[in-house]
Amino acid sequence: MNKVRILGVDTSLRSSGVAVVEVSGQKMQALAYGRIHNKAALSHSGCLAAIHKEIDKLIAEFEPAEAAIEGAFFAKNAKTAMILGQARGVVLAACALRNLPVYEYSPRSIKQAVVGSGAASKEQVARMVMRLLGLSELPQDDAADALASAICHIHQRGLPEALRSKPV
Amino acid sequence: MNKVRILGVDTSLRSSGVAVVEVSGQKMQALAYGRIHNKAALSHSGCLAAIHKEIDKLIAEFEPAEAAIEGAFFAKNAKTAMILGQARGVVLAACALRNLPVYEYSPRSIKQAVVGSGAASKEQVARMVMRLLGLSELPQDDAADALASAICHIHQRGLPEALRSKPV
Repeated sequence: MNKVRILGVDTSLRSSGVAVVEVSGQKMQALAYGRIHNKAALSHSGCLAAIHKEIDKLIAEFEPAEAAIEGAFFAKNAKTAMILGQARGVVLAACALRNLPVYEYSPRSIKQAVVGSGAASKEQVARMVMRLLGLSELPQDDAADALASAICHIHQRGLPEALRSKPV
Repeated sequence: MNKVRILGVDTSLRSSGVAVVEVSGQKMQALAYGRIHNKAALSHSGCLAAIHKEIDKLIAEFEPAEAAIEGAFFAKNAKTAMILGQARGVVLAACALRNLPVYEYSPRSIKQAVVGSGAASKEQVARMVMRLLGLSELPQDDAADALASAICHIHQRGLPEALRSKPV
């Protein structure tokens, strides 16, 4: 059975969740997860550079085949959308610069894939992620969302090609 | 008199204007200008990677001291803001990764600085940029906006420190 590694990212300017999940047949294993925490003292452009560096480092270290990010969601407020967009753009570029196809999933479809309900709470997501991956403790919220994005993509990969989403 | 080079960028996903302007006392000279044109066939994340590569290459080649981008403007529509934000985030990160301070100016203040009116048309901006920099022909619109961003920043640099905008 071939092993495939998926990078999951839940992007935000100050605290992005990141995760690498390896899948082999029905078995999923978290190889790494955590968050890119940018302190308040770091400038806006400094945060974006830090996100680029960390994503690039993760890809170099774990060599995932594909990436899944929480996206396809547009903040109602244009100012919030602009800031979130900046952080997401950096993640998309960092992946594309290393030829990693990136798939975007809405928060709702990620929750649906992991918990079975698009309206699940953050805690429900973290608990289910912990169970599905056999983690010894509850992951931090942003890391849990990144793990959940990777799991959502792993489910998608099992679908017939015509039903799968396309990389962005 | 010290020479200083300013990188100007007018960002968009498919056609970003870029420019490098050198200033020495009262004299300004365009060292390079043009646009990053991403064809329709290129994927969304591919466009973002191309923007990163081109900005990085320009900085490596011309070693500007500071960058000025058209920004601080929030699209009314959240979806548009998200896409524009992605492209801008990539430019900000590419600059910050090379330790280049980036200054953001609104379209209105760039037009005000270059033409003397915040409501100037694209053609008025291009004509004034051509005159101020002694170009032999009218620059393409996006390149003209990038040149105008650099000129706006050069004006700002002449102000007392307390009145200058801060890098982002």
